[in-house]
Amino acid sequence: MASAAVDYARQNQQRFLSELKDFLRIPSVSTLPQHKEDMRRAAEFIAAEMRRLGLEKVEVIPSQGHPLIYGEWLHADGKPTVLCYGHYDVQPAEPLEEWKAPPFEPVERDNNVYARGAADDKGQMYAHLKAIEALMQTHDGKLPVNVRFLIEGEEEVGGEAIDQFVNKHPERLRCSVALISDNQMFAPELPSLCVGLRGLCYTEIEASGAMTDLHSGIYGGAAPNPLEALCRIISKLKNEKGKILIPGFYDRVQRPGKEELQAWQRLPFKEKKYLQSEVGAKQLTGELQYPVLHRIWARPTLEVHGLPGGFVGYGAKTVIPAKAAAKISMRLVPDQRGEEIWKLFNNYVKSIVPRGIQINIKRWSVSDPIVVSTDNRFIKAATAALHEVFQKDTVYIRNGGSIPIVGAFAKALKVPSVLMGFALPDDNLHAPNEKFHIPNFYRGIESVVRWLEILGR
Amino acid sequence: MASAAVDYARQNQQRFLSELKDFLRIPSVSTLPQHKEDMRRAAEFIAAEMRRLGLEKVEVIPSQGHPLIYGEWLHADGKPTVLCYGHYDVQPAEPLEEWKAPPFEPVERDNNVYARGAADDKGQMYAHLKAIEALMQTHDGKLPVNVRFLIEGEEEVGGEAIDQFVNKHPERLRCSVALISDNQMFAPELPSLCVGLRGLCYTEIEASGAMTDLHSGIYGGAAPNPLEALCRIISKLKNEKGKILIPGFYDRVQRPGKEELQAWQRLPFKEKKYLQSEVGAKQLTGELQYPVLHRIWARPTLEVHGLPGGFVGYGAKTVIPAKAAAKISMRLVPDQRGEEIWKLFNNYVKSIVPRGIQINIKRWSVSDPIVVSTDNRFIKAATAALHEVFQKDTVYIRNGGSIPIVGAFAKALKVPSVLMGFALPDDNLHAPNEKFHIPNFYRGIESVVRWLEILGR
Repeated sequence: MASAAVDYARQNQQRFLSELKDFLRIPSVSTLPQHKEDMRRAAEFIAAEMRRLGLEKVEVIPSQGHPLIYGEWLHADGKPTVLCYGHYDVQPAEPLEEWKAPPFEPVERDNNVYARGAADDKGQMYAHLKAIEALMQTHDGKLPVNVRFLIEGEEEVGGEAIDQFVNKHPERLRCSVALISDNQMFAPELPSLCVGLRGLCYTEIEASGAMTDLHSGIYGGAAPNPLEALCRIISKLKNEKGKILIPGFYDRVQRPGKEELQAWQRLPFKEKKYLQSEVGAKQLTGELQYPVLHRIWARPTLEVHGLPGGFVGYGAKTVIPAKAAAKISMRLVPDQRGEEIWKLFNNYVKSIVPRGIQINIKRWSVSDPIVVSTDNRFIKAATAALHEVFQKDTVYIRNGGSIPIVGAFAKALKVPSVLMGFALPDDNLHAPNEKFHIPNFYRGIESVVRWLEILGR
Repeated sequence: MASAAVDYARQNQQRFLSELKDFLRIPSVSTLPQHKEDMRRAAEFIAAEMRRLGLEKVEVIPSQGHPLIYGEWLHADGKPTVLCYGHYDVQPAEPLEEWKAPPFEPVERDNNVYARGAADDKGQMYAHLKAIEALMQTHDGKLPVNVRFLIEGEEEVGGEAIDQFVNKHPERLRCSVALISDNQMFAPELPSLCVGLRGLCYTEIEASGAMTDLHSGIYGGAAPNPLEALCRIISKLKNEKGKILIPGFYDRVQRPGKEELQAWQRLPFKEKKYLQSEVGAKQLTGELQYPVLHRIWARPTLEVHGLPGGFVGYGAKTVIPAKAAAKISMRLVPDQRGEEIWKLFNNYVKSIVPRGIQINIKRWSVSDPIVVSTDNRFIKAATAALHEVFQKDTVYIRNGGSIPIVGAFAKALKVPSVLMGFALPDDNLHAPNEKFHIPNFYRGIESVVRWLEILGR
């Protein structure tokens, strides 16, 4: 792997990390209105970085929600064009009291950098930019392939700005392949390419009963209780064996091919270790008739994320709340369709509303599941690049999470996506103490450098 | 009703109201640790008032929780001794955004004073004190009967300070009867004496699954979800017809006597009006085979008050929370026993915990239901006093709420309680925009004046 760019990346590791920390200090929480200004700052941070690297036509593109950032370098005539995607928004950091250090003050511990967004996705998307820097700085401002960047700020809220942009301006994004590093490796030291993603249908059921909060002593036994009603609805959405009870929900679910299932069995996966060190629960749950990887990669599921309403402070308050809500999402697998599931969910929930309760169902995001073909030059080049950097064979895995943009790129731009992730299973994505393994930040940069060099041959 | 004390009370109405407002401005929320100092201020406010009136041996009695306040006047030889009870603590004011004016800045609208605690119980207990002032000021510092006051600050949290004090010092509280105004009239203009109260068993189930919050995309389908587990448990505590499913729960439930049930049917109660103007829901719920008053006064019930845990902010967060909890209470009726129900609840909940979940059940408060006999001179005197003030016959009702101290007075002091309440059904107890009808504040004062005068004949 004789690469001047890789050498440059290695020599500049400390500075790259220090710059990443500056980026992580911006609390770019897209879902909370009070961070709107931080979101703008994060977008400007990235735009400034793109300009410094030498990308052209850099633009912060306003949207109805948070802005997109675009940049390009298109002077590698006859070479493929790579569209690098990432997102600068992060999940809310709550519950704050469980963080060992403040979520937006990055600290290093045990070769990790801890901060909200360190892995998802600030650290990983920043690795793309640093790969460009390494290539530009060692090749007189030139790149081995054409490159476009499109970075969004609404990934964590299922915002539609990027979707609208991609559908409206496919010519501005014309490319041969998309690169996404918003996912995890299967295990430390095991280079992984993700070839399947679950879709998502995220909803919120708002329930109302009485016109005002009521004293449960005085009205209990006659007044409807929206929280209880939501619990009852939720208990009817899925049974104790993990089977979702929405009629028609499983109609389009496809079983993965025999070869893929066999490959999963060869992965270094120990259910006991997964239970104890990764999940840390008494037992695993769900559809026990399926192996764990099958359950989380290729079976749909339904989860409750929170029930706002009533009294949740310390102590006792005897209130029957007038209103309550339940945040509920479903993960979808091929060939389920997000829009269809959204309708089935609505119809079923409306049919099981308890007496005295009125509901309204909010839609937070809907996306289809994706399976990426492994049979193309981009995946093959990625496999080669990862082998050079990690000195190991790449495994092809799926991801239970959702990256809706992969579907948009396939549909509007007609290109495959290479899902080359460098986060680790214990990086606490969406949880307190999120981190990014620092060696993987560096290997991410090197892998992207080598992938672009191989594609440019 | 020729009474100098009543005349005095009428001439001083505006000042009494103004002083009540000063009391209402103290945010004495007993359940929230940050109000500990406000609790102390409220206790001192009452002690100072007692001293000003001329009560003796006034004392703020420290406890492990919030202090008690004691005061007495015992110079009416040969006359009965009345123990006046009340509480200076209030419910939390949340949700704040639903208050039309700040909860601790009392405002007058339509002959009501709006503030947290206006009716429950600050306004009602303050009426007792103002009755004493009227009597003292018009009788050379003398009262027609002996009087003791015992005021607590932990009624809304089921604190045990007063219970311990009553059990430890029955001789310091020796009396003939207790007076409690911590309840509602059946309807405006309808003087009411409450002769039955439901008991309470308030619990919190804490559930835990994984060791940290998990991303629902990556772990959904295999990791246990404590919120979902709690919903499942709750759905098994009560069925859709309002029947509680805890084995043995109904074993001791007594049906009220035929006469009492018939008297309830004569009360001015219209289910349609109750549904529309008081509850304001689509339909009433619960055990529809029982009339509404029977359901809320003489049938036990179970309510969910809040499910802390997970993501309850605006928007979407795909988290499987590591921990969650459910605040659940049961209202009990004669002859159910609080301690027995607590045990039955524990045993049953532990038997229905879903896979992968560990639980811990917290106990916030446990009290027995009460039925007060109507056949005593104190109730008869109260009936007469109310008739003088309201010019109407008194109705005997029950209350679905719980006033645990009634049980303690019966057990430790061997005295009955007169539950003479002046709050109205639309006073929004425990809810946003709590209020006290100002004419009822004044009539409360006059009724207590006349009751004490009649008892002193």
